[in-house]
Amino acid sequence: MSILVVGSVALDSVKTPAGSRQDALGGSATYFAVASSYFAPVSVVAAVGDDFRAEDRRVLEDHHVDMAGLAIFPGKTFRWVGEYGQDMNTAHTLDTQLNVFARFSPRLGPDQRKRPFLFLANIDPELQQQVLYQMEERPKLVVGDTMDFWIRGKPQALRQVIANVDILMVNEAEARQLTGETSLVRAARHLLRQGPRMVVVKRGEYGALGFTADATFATPAYPLETVVDPTGAGDSFAGGFLGYLAASGDLTLDGFHRAMVVGSVMASFTVESFGLERLRSLTPEDIQERYQEFWRLTYFGSPADAPLPVGSPRLPGRRPAGARRSP
Amino acid sequence: MSILVVGSVALDSVKTPAGSRQDALGGSATYFAVASSYFAPVSVVAAVGDDFRAEDRRVLEDHHVDMAGLAIFPGKTFRWVGEYGQDMNTAHTLDTQLNVFARFSPRLGPDQRKRPFLFLANIDPELQQQVLYQMEERPKLVVGDTMDFWIRGKPQALRQVIANVDILMVNEAEARQLTGETSLVRAARHLLRQGPRMVVVKRGEYGALGFTADATFATPAYPLETVVDPTGAGDSFAGGFLGYLAASGDLTLDGFHRAMVVGSVMASFTVESFGLERLRSLTPEDIQERYQEFWRLTYFGSPADAPLPVGSPRLPGRRPAGARRSP
Repeated sequence: MSILVVGSVALDSVKTPAGSRQDALGGSATYFAVASSYFAPVSVVAAVGDDFRAEDRRVLEDHHVDMAGLAIFPGKTFRWVGEYGQDMNTAHTLDTQLNVFARFSPRLGPDQRKRPFLFLANIDPELQQQVLYQMEERPKLVVGDTMDFWIRGKPQALRQVIANVDILMVNEAEARQLTGETSLVRAARHLLRQGPRMVVVKRGEYGALGFTADATFATPAYPLETVVDPTGAGDSFAGGFLGYLAASGDLTLDGFHRAMVVGSVMASFTVESFGLERLRSLTPEDIQERYQEFWRLTYFGSPADAPLPVGSPRLPGRRPAGARRSP
Repeated sequence: MSILVVGSVALDSVKTPAGSRQDALGGSATYFAVASSYFAPVSVVAAVGDDFRAEDRRVLEDHHVDMAGLAIFPGKTFRWVGEYGQDMNTAHTLDTQLNVFARFSPRLGPDQRKRPFLFLANIDPELQQQVLYQMEERPKLVVGDTMDFWIRGKPQALRQVIANVDILMVNEAEARQLTGETSLVRAARHLLRQGPRMVVVKRGEYGALGFTADATFATPAYPLETVVDPTGAGDSFAGGFLGYLAASGDLTLDGFHRAMVVGSVMASFTVESFGLERLRSLTPEDIQERYQEFWRLTYFGSPADAPLPVGSPRLPGRRPAGARRSP
């Protein structure tokens, strides 16, 4: 099944301890689309300026991303300038030039209005809401992202979006900011009461937690020797997540859990290089192999097969299991 | 099989956002011993002052902890005063009174010298080394802990200890401080080259990573609604870890992985209350149940049973798997 993403296509200038890049292809919709393209067909709704380069368009076309919804306005493409220090979990924005993106108002074509999977990337919640209104019928699954800028600036509109998405993806700081709760568990419960059936809390190098009313899932981040550039990790996570669900059609709790792992897989590739350099050049085998590595990283054997040798040291006659074999 | 722990028995005064306690039973050996006592017999080598209360001794006796190695010196028991802010991952030490602990020099009895499992809790590395010398034969498994104070103060002695333990347990900051590496993966590789066959990096609310030459393991921390007091979490982790290995006798990679989960289980109980309040009153069922919860938290289904529906969008004729079911 196919996916629609509404978000940004941007040119990023980024500096990290590993180096820097100028005006490299980026943006939430771009990372999402390339990550999800390995799993399912994806259409982008976004806006760029007339300076958008043919080679950048080709990156998306090479991934068979449907670009009918990419509007081209006179003017310059959205630009982001950022920096990361040793703590790669926090981006320092040095400059944001909205350029043509300031005039962006998503218009969905007839085909796009029927997409069963929708990702509302981090844009103005009023625009996110407009996209939802334009859908011909309720998609099977709507996933939404946001950021501190909208939490502070448009809390009302954002509340409405949160009420209307199936899955909300936020980072730790955003979860706390949205709810006033320090505990992530309480923050997630708080958000679940506002509408979504799942809340995914992204924690950068510490992985992600998924909360539903009935289950909690934890996925680690892939332990990498070097993180080159964390830009786009969250949107790549979302792309892997939704790509997996669209391809498998598995909207059970187990499916959501696996989708989180696939999201972590795709994010791990993104941060291994600047921009899209690694993410855009993967083979299916690369992805399968890293998915297997997540399995080895986390699988510790079913408790049903090997119950814990645990006893009660405090009750007479119920010594710990190991005691029988002492000294 | 039985365990020997050499460490501190202390009286802790702690303040957290959830409240405070004065002179509550604590210390690395105490947390370790109580946590491991649910799995295997454990002997403590430590020192207290003549102010050590009968009720505190009883906590350990109730857990059948062998206290023959608890020396009682004239004077006051080791006291630690600390505080945690909203960031529960970092303790702020307000006061440390070594008291009789300053005179502590571990003397192992004939039985203790034969223990197959040894935990060298966070004490002066010269004392850790003395304990190793006193062992009659090389234990099956030696696990060592340390802290920033010794990394700065006794780097040479610590290097020797690290060369002699099988498993080194440190937190993120300590791993970086010991190696000068920012990347945990590189820090762990660096430490593995110094002797241990496994390095466990504890990350507080973010769980733990285990590194060996052949495999890496990730375990989440249990997502708790409220963390009351993180004191003792690391030693409870070590207690669950070594307790499981001593009870199961499973020193394979899989065993180490499960031991990390059991460590996380025990640490999760400790932080749910002040001091030992929760850890000392567990039933075997509590422990089994939480172990099962870790399973549900992390198990996402074997990739062998359900390979990823992934394709290569960049190669002609090799569309993503999901494409076949579009639109």
